[in-house]
Amino acid sequence: MKWNALYALPLSSIHIDDGYWNRYIRLVPERIIPYQWEVLNDRVKDAAPSYCLQNFKIAAGEIAGERKGAVFQDSDVGKWLEAVAYSLQSVPDPKLETIADEVINLIGRAQCEDGYINTYFTLKENGRRWRNLTMGHELYTAGHLIEAAVAYYQATGKDAFLKIMCRFADLICETFGPAKNQCHGCPGHEEIELALVKLYGVTKERRYLEMARYFVEVRGAKPNSFLTEMAERDFHEVYNEKTFFFPAYSQSDKPVREQTKAEGHAVRAVYLYCAMADLAAAYQDDGLLESCKTLWNDMVNRQMYITGSIGSCADYEGFTVDYDLPNDTNYSETCASIGLALFGLRMSRVTGEAKYLDVVERALYNTVRAGISQEGDRYFYVNPLEVWPENCLPHSAHKHVNPVRQKWFDVACCPTNVARTLTSLGQYLYSVSDSSVYLNLFMANHTEVTVAEVPVSLDLACDFPVSGNLTLHVSAQQAVAFALRIRVPGYATNFRISVNGQEQLLCIEKGFAVLERTWGVDTVEVSFGMEAKLVSANPRVRADIGRVALVRGPEVFCLEETDNGKNLASVFVSREAALETAFAPDICGGVNTVSFAGEQLVEEDWDADTLYSDRPLIYRPVQLKAVPYACWGNRKPGEMLVWMHAKE
Amino acid sequence: MKWNALYALPLSSIHIDDGYWNRYIRLVPERIIPYQWEVLNDRVKDAAPSYCLQNFKIAAGEIAGERKGAVFQDSDVGKWLEAVAYSLQSVPDPKLETIADEVINLIGRAQCEDGYINTYFTLKENGRRWRNLTMGHELYTAGHLIEAAVAYYQATGKDAFLKIMCRFADLICETFGPAKNQCHGCPGHEEIELALVKLYGVTKERRYLEMARYFVEVRGAKPNSFLTEMAERDFHEVYNEKTFFFPAYSQSDKPVREQTKAEGHAVRAVYLYCAMADLAAAYQDDGLLESCKTLWNDMVNRQMYITGSIGSCADYEGFTVDYDLPNDTNYSETCASIGLALFGLRMSRVTGEAKYLDVVERALYNTVRAGISQEGDRYFYVNPLEVWPENCLPHSAHKHVNPVRQKWFDVACCPTNVARTLTSLGQYLYSVSDSSVYLNLFMANHTEVTVAEVPVSLDLACDFPVSGNLTLHVSAQQAVAFALRIRVPGYATNFRISVNGQEQLLCIEKGFAVLERTWGVDTVEVSFGMEAKLVSANPRVRADIGRVALVRGPEVFCLEETDNGKNLASVFVSREAALETAFAPDICGGVNTVSFAGEQLVEEDWDADTLYSDRPLIYRPVQLKAVPYACWGNRKPGEMLVWMHAKE
Repeated sequence: MKWNALYALPLSSIHIDDGYWNRYIRLVPERIIPYQWEVLNDRVKDAAPSYCLQNFKIAAGEIAGERKGAVFQDSDVGKWLEAVAYSLQSVPDPKLETIADEVINLIGRAQCEDGYINTYFTLKENGRRWRNLTMGHELYTAGHLIEAAVAYYQATGKDAFLKIMCRFADLICETFGPAKNQCHGCPGHEEIELALVKLYGVTKERRYLEMARYFVEVRGAKPNSFLTEMAERDFHEVYNEKTFFFPAYSQSDKPVREQTKAEGHAVRAVYLYCAMADLAAAYQDDGLLESCKTLWNDMVNRQMYITGSIGSCADYEGFTVDYDLPNDTNYSETCASIGLALFGLRMSRVTGEAKYLDVVERALYNTVRAGISQEGDRYFYVNPLEVWPENCLPHSAHKHVNPVRQKWFDVACCPTNVARTLTSLGQYLYSVSDSSVYLNLFMANHTEVTVAEVPVSLDLACDFPVSGNLTLHVSAQQAVAFALRIRVPGYATNFRISVNGQEQLLCIEKGFAVLERTWGVDTVEVSFGMEAKLVSANPRVRADIGRVALVRGPEVFCLEETDNGKNLASVFVSREAALETAFAPDICGGVNTVSFAGEQLVEEDWDADTLYSDRPLIYRPVQLKAVPYACWGNRKPGEMLVWMHAKE
Repeated sequence: MKWNALYALPLSSIHIDDGYWNRYIRLVPERIIPYQWEVLNDRVKDAAPSYCLQNFKIAAGEIAGERKGAVFQDSDVGKWLEAVAYSLQSVPDPKLETIADEVINLIGRAQCEDGYINTYFTLKENGRRWRNLTMGHELYTAGHLIEAAVAYYQATGKDAFLKIMCRFADLICETFGPAKNQCHGCPGHEEIELALVKLYGVTKERRYLEMARYFVEVRGAKPNSFLTEMAERDFHEVYNEKTFFFPAYSQSDKPVREQTKAEGHAVRAVYLYCAMADLAAAYQDDGLLESCKTLWNDMVNRQMYITGSIGSCADYEGFTVDYDLPNDTNYSETCASIGLALFGLRMSRVTGEAKYLDVVERALYNTVRAGISQEGDRYFYVNPLEVWPENCLPHSAHKHVNPVRQKWFDVACCPTNVARTLTSLGQYLYSVSDSSVYLNLFMANHTEVTVAEVPVSLDLACDFPVSGNLTLHVSAQQAVAFALRIRVPGYATNFRISVNGQEQLLCIEKGFAVLERTWGVDTVEVSFGMEAKLVSANPRVRADIGRVALVRGPEVFCLEETDNGKNLASVFVSREAALETAFAPDICGGVNTVSFAGEQLVEEDWDADTLYSDRPLIYRPVQLKAVPYACWGNRKPGEMLVWMHAKE
């Protein structure tokens, strides 16, 4: 292919001010970052303990005590700092910045002589560094700290954190590689790869990019480095990985270029794929890009939930087989949807194709937003599409399903991941090339972009996804020719564009409507329809047969007990039901709801003590109200259902 | 209530010669017992190792080596010997009897000075007897050996095994009880209780009955003896029971008389309930019987699969909440259905009610028979109602589901349990009281019974469940008045009885048709209809909403891939479909199959790479063939489905 990958705008140039997202974005500095800070310091009552800051203090030799929490606990500090960095860009907060600086200093004080940072291996497994790559998460944790350092440098211009992490990255570059005296392994949990690409991006130190490439390419080499390591290793404390681990779990059953199926742990997989896409662009590597496309297609066309979540298996938090998408025992981790969005964004930039952004949008507008409560202090880790709270019992098939959002988790990757995602949503909005500006997602924003050395202001006004009416004010400091490319979502109907009141003939390339002209001060108006509709799943998805889901634009809707009563599984909907959309200002900061008529099996008509019978079934007409999946569980706790029974 | 519990006939007086069961019953001496003997001696290639005989030889000091296998491994020998005992009653086999005698001698040689028998605690945890009642299974294992000893004594008249086990039972009676110097605990896995009642039955030593009663009554006392034990115990090797155990798991959250819900591990529960029913009868204990009825009703009216299986949760192999009956992630252990049948049989005898036998029959004709292959050498431990082999993956929600029967299991309770059940089916056929003979189940048989001191022969000819036509020849040595009571199954239609060609007015008491007369040589003819029909589940059973199951008499039918192709979940059936029953002599020794027209979603019409769409669905007409669930998986491996989508 012709390599002209698109690039991102600096996050600092994008200011979101969007009716749909504001509530959540504003929560980050106001509520989420302070709340998570309290959690990381173990000051929130009844929340699962974090130990994060305490661990760093112990590692720095400043307090006594036992290092506690998961082996990858340090990464939560990384993601929190990353969220802080993004937040400081849009909402300066000197007090918060001081706290962040102190945390960064603490990390520096906990750093070993040689640059190594990891409180678990420093305090609990001293002398065993890099010997449990399978499950030790040292490189994963390093990756999150590096991402945070890059973000903090970009946000504040301060390079202390960046220097700390470069020292660690340098140690990693020395330790790993093809040379005889180097370790030929790669991380059991990917993340360092995409982080090293980012580090290269700000430092321009090519060794970081090369290191990322090495980690990606060595994965899946024979003999499997994880199996070798486990056989040779004389300790197995972290997990019972000997019985649990299988090579595909960490995408290491074969080299990544030979992989055609998204397999194993879903978060691991998408973080790897992000790095593969980055490296494909950096090295103009057609083969690697082909692998990315194949894996993307396998994942989103055969293994993705309608809510943009992935990983149907709870036990190893990952992929199973094509079309195996159970709705009530699935994992669908919030982090996996974040990783999916990050991968999709990269794919849209490498290929210039809009179709990837449809999936990005689906993940962000459904699962990612569902991952956090309306108040910002409760989180879903697991995102089922059907919940019957009564059967979510310990030691059961639903043991991982929380019917209500939690204060924190023993493994707490998701809350901080949501925080950094909400504060960096701007990264998704635009892509640019030398001669084009791409509008990817429809969040109201003010953005400064420079095209052909001319500063251009972009002001997007919209109430998406309430409606598909967008107004984009373009204001170039001087007349400048470029192509404005506006994404035409796959779900859009009757897509129309006008410039300065003049309707334009549609020219669509790679899923973007192209407006090629010389811009000065102009107004672009876009409108498209997003009718609520009932969709079916591919008949190969056994779990959804005989069922329908309600979608409108990027949003998937669900029934909740609070609106529709108990036993939502007993509701039947005609595929021809008339769907009435209405705006509900009181739910999650204002969303559309959809009402429609249905039927419901009458439970009371059936003796509670008769399980099976050939008696006729009695239905009663019911009026149903569906709310966006993203909002579920924000009112009264109860049942929730996405895939409703269809009255055939 | 008026206490006149019915009693059982000696198994030796009942000879089954039944078209439906013969194939399986004959397999026991011909194939199952020899095969299991090979397994117990670890001579079957690729079968999970048993170690059973080896362990006893090590314990007897006759060979060297490490004691291996589960803590309860000895119990498999017990159940095997019990099956042998029953088998010798109907098929004498001196060679087999010699082998059994040798095994019994071996058990005797492995017995400790004081009577204790348990290879695990003798060899692996010496000095830790009775200190892990929660998970140690010593009393469970003792119970199965006692049941075997009783059966062997009844079958052969030899009392060596009985004496061995009485010595152990005496030790148990000394060890446990209310006295200060006794242990006040009870077994984590029930079984000893019903075994001690049986031991009392043949020895008439009342202390055994009292011991059983103590174990039942002390269960659930405060403080919970298992929690106390775990807190005090200084070793936890057997299982990670500290994180796993919860009192209801072993029915110990409250005293049994206060229990109203079937909870916890299903096999544990039904074995306990069997003993409760036995003790209710032995002590004419109304309160205990009321508890039995309450627990029975809870279990069969709210927590039982249509196939007569119980325990919807795989993780702890047990009950969850009312109406939580998923069809593809369930456990439904073969042993649990055996225990359910044993409990139901006891309840029918204590109460004189036929309704319990409907459930017994459902368990035996579906799940129990499904537990073993047509050839007798492959077994199901777990009995799902919907299997998609491709998604039965390790470390997944379906990890416990075997799509094909297995040669053996690491935990192999089920195969030997099926063997002893098939050889003791006779126990289910009749119950008697002083003035009545009850015909419970319809298996062709010849039976000798003594009524009012008059020997009476009963010859039942039938081809049940192929048809509901029964002919019972009664031949009394001299004229004798008694009531013949023939069960009227809940599913029977047009139930008619004639005696010597003379149709009788139906008099039905407690579910039995009563023929009260003076009997000499008479012929009773019974006929009833068993139309195939499609049934629904209670709308509270979320998993079955919008679905129908095909039943005919006691048999539940299923679709198999070998008859109906792939993706059985995409099949739709009208509730009004015409069902055509036909006899298939080639399946499982001859069974009815049912054919009907349906529709199937056309997979090929839908792009394999489109997951969700509002495109119309295309159905094609299909001709479907259902086979009895009991037979599934005996032909080509593949998908299986009980609850089919209903075309509403």
